[in-house]
Amino acid sequence: MARLRRENPVIGVDLGGTKILAAVVDGNGQVLGQSKRKTIPKGEIVTPPLVADRIALTVTEALAAAGLERTQVKAVGASAPGPVNVSTGWVARAANLPGWEAGYDLGPELSKRLKLPVVVDNDVNLGTLGEAMYGAGQGIADVLGIFVGTGIGGGIVMDGKLRRGFRWSAGEIGHMFVDVGGPICGCGMAGHAEAIASRGAISRRLAAAIAAGQETLLAPAGSEVTEKEIALTSGDIRRALEAGDALTNQVVREAQEVLGLLIASVVNLLDPQAVILGGGLVQSLGESFVEPVRAYAYDHFFLPDPEHRVQIMQASLGDLATVMGAAVLARMGA
Amino acid sequence: MARLRRENPVIGVDLGGTKILAAVVDGNGQVLGQSKRKTIPKGEIVTPPLVADRIALTVTEALAAAGLERTQVKAVGASAPGPVNVSTGWVARAANLPGWEAGYDLGPELSKRLKLPVVVDNDVNLGTLGEAMYGAGQGIADVLGIFVGTGIGGGIVMDGKLRRGFRWSAGEIGHMFVDVGGPICGCGMAGHAEAIASRGAISRRLAAAIAAGQETLLAPAGSEVTEKEIALTSGDIRRALEAGDALTNQVVREAQEVLGLLIASVVNLLDPQAVILGGGLVQSLGESFVEPVRAYAYDHFFLPDPEHRVQIMQASLGDLATVMGAAVLARMGA
Repeated sequence: MARLRRENPVIGVDLGGTKILAAVVDGNGQVLGQSKRKTIPKGEIVTPPLVADRIALTVTEALAAAGLERTQVKAVGASAPGPVNVSTGWVARAANLPGWEAGYDLGPELSKRLKLPVVVDNDVNLGTLGEAMYGAGQGIADVLGIFVGTGIGGGIVMDGKLRRGFRWSAGEIGHMFVDVGGPICGCGMAGHAEAIASRGAISRRLAAAIAAGQETLLAPAGSEVTEKEIALTSGDIRRALEAGDALTNQVVREAQEVLGLLIASVVNLLDPQAVILGGGLVQSLGESFVEPVRAYAYDHFFLPDPEHRVQIMQASLGDLATVMGAAVLARMGA
Repeated sequence: MARLRRENPVIGVDLGGTKILAAVVDGNGQVLGQSKRKTIPKGEIVTPPLVADRIALTVTEALAAAGLERTQVKAVGASAPGPVNVSTGWVARAANLPGWEAGYDLGPELSKRLKLPVVVDNDVNLGTLGEAMYGAGQGIADVLGIFVGTGIGGGIVMDGKLRRGFRWSAGEIGHMFVDVGGPICGCGMAGHAEAIASRGAISRRLAAAIAAGQETLLAPAGSEVTEKEIALTSGDIRRALEAGDALTNQVVREAQEVLGLLIASVVNLLDPQAVILGGGLVQSLGESFVEPVRAYAYDHFFLPDPEHRVQIMQASLGDLATVMGAAVLARMGA
């Protein structure tokens, strides 16, 4: 059995703004070895080629942890925190990575360093693919992934394959209009779901409410906080909800409503078999956050679904979703 | 050449609330013969089995017009104005057809009468497929169809095939939320695109404005019109715009804005190669209606598209789109 499970190993890499995670994954989705390091150590200047070096080092360590040689793996799949041309491995830009503004040829550069085929895709696509293959969506052919964090990203798996769109830009579910004339999104447009339902939006809206003098446990009455100063983490929001803070509860409730309507909208359009909700905010708040979203969504399906045939589930792989999706990509190719 | 073009004929049927259209179509999309009749002659009661009889008769006439025998065609594709289980040919209900409320086994019943394999799908899916294969989208693999009439329907073609969804209910693009808390849709929910941007919504909104005393060429000042009395056709709306009616212009402009935002939303999610706009309202108002929609849409793409790589086009097959899509379905199967 142990031998069987070690068959066909591939490498998955999750490149994020804060950390690099590499894992050697076998044909059954078993992690044989992994390694992790900071993307950019404190105080250092790390150019894109140096990030590629650090990824290569992390991969080498993951191989060592798995007790495997580079020549024993077939390919590498890697995620990037930004838009990717999957056919070339070009990363157009990367959120939170200084020096990537003009893009970087991550796929070819990694391939040169690792002497292995490398396929690159964006992190949300790969998170969805990971959940669809090894997580909450295991065995489901058509899955829509929605990841709620600083923003809201999405991924679409149909017939077990990612749909990336004509310009490699499919899945921007947070930038769908749900409230014409509503709050301004991080992208500058008004009325996107992300402008109400993301962790970033919740934090901004709470800062604005505090500045407007509303009472909350998050800040002393009458305090003048800017959006940047408050910068609530998912943990802050969870603790405020647990402490029964009415303002936080109200702002989170609005986010849940909009997420529910967003899911209903997309189900009305695509009618997938499953919708998987993940990302930092969902992971931190858990089922008590997901349940009202699910209820709002089912209440707003155009074709009613009393038996909940379209499943709305919480992601199950946590921080491993993207690296597992990257391993699937390495195995299946783009 | 003439012989070549007559190869592999199939039959497409468009069953609508007012007319039945049948066409014999060859492998190049050439119509070899067609026939048409009213779905329900004035004053008659036509049950679903009698509609099936009338379809069979229309098909027989189309074959005669093409100079072909039934045995020379491979299959029949048929549309229905309602949700269809494509794997069985069951029509769950049909808009504007009395007696179809409990559904009807249209596929098997037609097959029995015609002694040919019959595949059934809904009219908007087949309109999109027709446009994608033989109309504005010829040669384009990924097409989103949006049809604006009484309501707003949609169809999704990816890799040249219809995506119908897990519950056969994909494409309900008119029932996507764009304006939370906005006008009430025909389906009873608030904020759907269809509640602002359909011909039905334009008519309703104009009736409400007239009732509220707003000036317009559509009705004498102060007249009390109900939504039903006014029931504007696409032609009425076109004439009011041509006459420079300010109220109609404003209501239509709002519809164009919402259609533009709806297209942008769906492009942000799916990133298709082309969006095709069709349906009675678009056909009647033409390019002067489509151009502002297109401009609003491009202005609201998340990934800017200055070169208009994602094409936003007017449908080109008019009333033939659905029957042509039905022929494609007959040829390719579901």
